[in-house]
Amino acid sequence: MTLTEARKQLMELQSKLSAYYHAVGSIHYDGVTGAPRGTAKNRAHSMTILTGELYKLNTSPETRAMLEYLDEHKAELSQAEQRMVHLLLKGLRKTEKIPMDFFMEHRRMIIEASDAWRRAKETSDFAIFKPYLQRVFDDCVKLAEICEPGMDPFDYWLNDSEEGLNSAKCDAFFAAVKEKVVPLARAISEKPQVDDSIINGYFPEYKQRQVSSVIMDMMGIDKDRCGIATTEHPFTTSLGSQNDVRITTHYYENTFSPAMYSVMHEGGHGLYFMYPAEEYAYTVLDGGCSMSLHESQSRFYENYVGRSRGFIKNVFPKLAEIFPENFEGKTPEDLYRAVNKVEPGLIRIRADEVTYTLHILVRYEIERRMLAGEVKIGEVPELWNAMYKDYLGVTVPNDTMGCLQDSHWGSGQVGYFPTYSLGTAYGAQFLKKMKETLDVDRLLDEGDLAPISAWNREHIWQYGRLYEPEELLEKVFEGPFDPTCFTDYLEKKYKDIYGL
Amino acid sequence: MTLTEARKQLMELQSKLSAYYHAVGSIHYDGVTGAPRGTAKNRAHSMTILTGELYKLNTSPETRAMLEYLDEHKAELSQAEQRMVHLLLKGLRKTEKIPMDFFMEHRRMIIEASDAWRRAKETSDFAIFKPYLQRVFDDCVKLAEICEPGMDPFDYWLNDSEEGLNSAKCDAFFAAVKEKVVPLARAISEKPQVDDSIINGYFPEYKQRQVSSVIMDMMGIDKDRCGIATTEHPFTTSLGSQNDVRITTHYYENTFSPAMYSVMHEGGHGLYFMYPAEEYAYTVLDGGCSMSLHESQSRFYENYVGRSRGFIKNVFPKLAEIFPENFEGKTPEDLYRAVNKVEPGLIRIRADEVTYTLHILVRYEIERRMLAGEVKIGEVPELWNAMYKDYLGVTVPNDTMGCLQDSHWGSGQVGYFPTYSLGTAYGAQFLKKMKETLDVDRLLDEGDLAPISAWNREHIWQYGRLYEPEELLEKVFEGPFDPTCFTDYLEKKYKDIYGL
Repeated sequence: MTLTEARKQLMELQSKLSAYYHAVGSIHYDGVTGAPRGTAKNRAHSMTILTGELYKLNTSPETRAMLEYLDEHKAELSQAEQRMVHLLLKGLRKTEKIPMDFFMEHRRMIIEASDAWRRAKETSDFAIFKPYLQRVFDDCVKLAEICEPGMDPFDYWLNDSEEGLNSAKCDAFFAAVKEKVVPLARAISEKPQVDDSIINGYFPEYKQRQVSSVIMDMMGIDKDRCGIATTEHPFTTSLGSQNDVRITTHYYENTFSPAMYSVMHEGGHGLYFMYPAEEYAYTVLDGGCSMSLHESQSRFYENYVGRSRGFIKNVFPKLAEIFPENFEGKTPEDLYRAVNKVEPGLIRIRADEVTYTLHILVRYEIERRMLAGEVKIGEVPELWNAMYKDYLGVTVPNDTMGCLQDSHWGSGQVGYFPTYSLGTAYGAQFLKKMKETLDVDRLLDEGDLAPISAWNREHIWQYGRLYEPEELLEKVFEGPFDPTCFTDYLEKKYKDIYGL
Repeated sequence: MTLTEARKQLMELQSKLSAYYHAVGSIHYDGVTGAPRGTAKNRAHSMTILTGELYKLNTSPETRAMLEYLDEHKAELSQAEQRMVHLLLKGLRKTEKIPMDFFMEHRRMIIEASDAWRRAKETSDFAIFKPYLQRVFDDCVKLAEICEPGMDPFDYWLNDSEEGLNSAKCDAFFAAVKEKVVPLARAISEKPQVDDSIINGYFPEYKQRQVSSVIMDMMGIDKDRCGIATTEHPFTTSLGSQNDVRITTHYYENTFSPAMYSVMHEGGHGLYFMYPAEEYAYTVLDGGCSMSLHESQSRFYENYVGRSRGFIKNVFPKLAEIFPENFEGKTPEDLYRAVNKVEPGLIRIRADEVTYTLHILVRYEIERRMLAGEVKIGEVPELWNAMYKDYLGVTVPNDTMGCLQDSHWGSGQVGYFPTYSLGTAYGAQFLKKMKETLDVDRLLDEGDLAPISAWNREHIWQYGRLYEPEELLEKVFEGPFDPTCFTDYLEKKYKDIYGL
C-alpha cells in the first residue's frame, strides 16, 4: 500500500459510510415523520441488515489495514486526515468488540422500542413500553461491559455522549447549578406570577406552520437544504451530509410557543449540522463535536436568542400579523414575560430556563440508578413521579406527561440528558465570550442575527468533529469551563423580570 | 455447496436486496415528497454508491455460483424458488453486461434529471430539462445496445416494461383501439356537452385530504401499512416489502376530481403492492407481474370502479358532507356525468376514458422516433404540440402543460407509456371475467368493494411476480387478450351518457 492509495481508500470509505448513514437515516426519519403506523417491523428488517453492512464496512480487514497504515504514517497526514483516522480507528476498535449479531439485533430492537414508546405515550400505557425499556437498559449495561469492561456503565454512556464526561464531573456541575437555581426558583415563586395569556388560546396548525417558516428565515436557515417536518418528539438530523438537514417540530393548537421554541432549538442544531467546513462533507468530520456542544447551539438559539428582549421585539409584529386576534392589545413586553415565565412544570421541553436543570436531574438520577441495578423497570413511573414531586413540587397525572414524555430511552439514548444542561451552560459561556467582540444585545434588538451566527460558525461550527470537546471548549473559552456564566445569566435576567 | 445451503443463501440474498431497495426507495421517496429543494446532488451522491453496492450484490461470484447451482437443481425446487432463481439469474446476466461505472453514473444522472424536470415543469422552461432529456435517451439507446445488441432499442424498452411486448404488438393494439375510439370521440363531440360545474370551484387542500382518506377507506386500503403523501407527479411505491406501501397525490384547489382519481389510481397500485402472498415478502416475487398488469389494477380502480354509477352513488354523500356548498342542489347523476365528461384536453392524467389512448399515442410515437434518432431533443416540444393539435385538436399553451407534464422521462422511464393503455384494456377484460361470477354492478351500487378486491387478489395480486405476464393473462382470461372488451365497454358506457 502506498500513502496515496491509502489516502484515496480513506476518502472512499468515508464516502461509502456516508451513503449508508444516509440510507439508515432516511429510513429512520421517514419512520418518525410520515410512515404508516404499522410499519416498524418492516423498517426493523431493513435496518438490521443495513446495520450489519455498516458493521462490516467499519471493521473489515481492508478498513483496518488502511487505517493502521495511515496511523503509522500520521506525521505525513493533514490535521483533518489524522482526525479522520483517529475517529475511524476508535470506532473500529469499539465496534469489533461487539459481536455482529448483537450489534444488529440491538438495532432491530431499538426500532421496535421506539415504535412501542410512541404507542405507549399516545395511550399513556407504560406496560406497552416496559419490556422494551428493559431491553434498552439491559443492552446498555451489556454494551458498556463489552466495550469498556471494568468501567461504570453510567460513566461509559456519559462518555459516549461527550468524550471525557463522567458522573463525577456531572455531579460537580449539577451541584454548582443547583446551589444557585434552587434559591432563585424559590425567590421567584414568592413574587407575583407574570401574565402569560398571550401564548394561550387557539392557534391553528396551518398558522403555526407559517410561524415556523418565519422563524427559520429569521434564523437565517437556508431552506433549500434544511427541511422541516412534524413528529412526536422533535429532533434534528442530517441525511448523508451537511447538504441535507432536517429539523422537526410538534404543533399543539392551544399554544404556539412550544412549537416556535422547538423550531429555534432544532434550528440551532440545524445550523451546526449545516456549517462544518464544506470539505468535511461525506467524511466523519461532517458533524458536531459532541452532544453537549450540539445542545449548546440548540439551547443558544432557543434561549439566549429566542427568549431575549431583542428577538421578541422583532418577532412580535410577525406573530401579531399571523395571530391578529390573539395579539390584539398586547405588547412585545407581554410576550417577553410570557415566554420567560418561571413555573415548575411537568414537561422538560416546555420548561423555563430556571427550572430546566431540575428536569434533567430527575432523568440523570433515574438513569444512574437503573444502570446500577438499583431500580427495576417497573418502578420507573413511580420513582419519576416521586422525584417530580420532590424536585419540582408537581404531581404527575399520567405517564404520558411523566416518564413517557421523552423519546430518548426508546431510541437507546442513555447518558444523553446531562448534555442538555451542560450545553446550556457552555452556551452561556459562549455568549459571554461573544460579547467581548460583539454588541449582542444591540444586534438582537436590531434583529440582525447574522453576526451572531457568523461568530458561532467561526468558533464552533466550521470545525465539525476536528477537535475533542475539551479541546474545542478550551479554544473558545480561552480558559476553563465556568458554570457561573450560566447561573449569573439566570440571576440577572430573572431578577429583572420578577423584580427580585 | 449443498441444496440446503444454496436455498438459505437464496433467501438471504433476497432479504439483503430488499433492504437495499428499501434504502434507495426511501431516499427516492423522500426526494420527491418532503425533501428540501436544493438536495438532489446530495441524494445523487448516496444513491450512486448504494446502486453500486446493489450491482455488486446482484452480480457477485457468490451470487452467480449459488444461482447457477440452484438452476442446475431446479427440479428439486418449489415453483416459487424456481421463479426466484430465474428472475435473479436473468437480472444478473443483464446487469453484468453493463459496466458498473456506467450503471452507477446512470443512476446519478437520473436523480439530477428528475430534479431538473421538476424545476423545468415549475417554470415551464424546457431548456432546463433539455440536456438531461438528451442524456436519458442517449443512455437508453446505449443500455439497449449493451443488453440486447441487434434488438431495436424501442422494442428493448417496451420489453423491459412488459416481458414479451414489442412495437408490433403495440401497433396492432393501438390500431384496434383507435378504430373504435376516434369515431366514438367524434360522435360525442357532436352531442351537447355534459355539465361538469360540480367539480369546479374552490376545494381547499385540507378538505381534499379528507377526501383522500375517505377514498382509501372505501377502497379498503389498510392505512396501517399504506401511507399517502403529496408530490409533483403521483406515483406508488413499496418500501422494503409489501408491509409498507406509499401512494401519493397532488392537490389543485380549483377542482377535487384529479386528486380523488389519482388516489384511486395509486390506490389500485397500492393494493397490488400490498397483497402478493405474504411469504413473498422480502423476496423478488414481492411485486407486480409487469407494468401493464400494475396499470390494469390502477386503471381498474380509477375508472371501472371510480367512474361507475354505483361508486359515485356511494361517494356522493361523503363528498357532499365535505363540500356542502359546492354540492348544494346537485345529484349523484350530476357528479357521474361530470367525472365522465369526454373532452379532448392537454393533460394525460386528467384525460377521460375515451381520449386517454390518444395521449398515450403521442408519447408512444415520440419515444419511438427519438430512440430511432429521427427526432432531436430540441424538437420535442414542437413535435408534442403538433401531435396534440393533430390527435386531440388542442393547442398547447406552454411546455408545463405539454411535454413537461409527465415525470417519466426525467425518471429514465422510456417504453412505459403503452402499459397504461394496455393495462386499461387488460382491466376491461378482467372486469368482463369478474362479471361471470360476481354481480359487479350490484356490488358497486351497494358500495361493497370487498368481493371485487377479493377477486383481484385471488386472480392477480397473490401471485406477485410468480408468472410471466403472458402466462398470468392467459390464466385469468382463459383465452387470448381481446381489446374489444375495452372498446365495447367504452361504447356502451358513453352511448348511454351522451345519448348516441
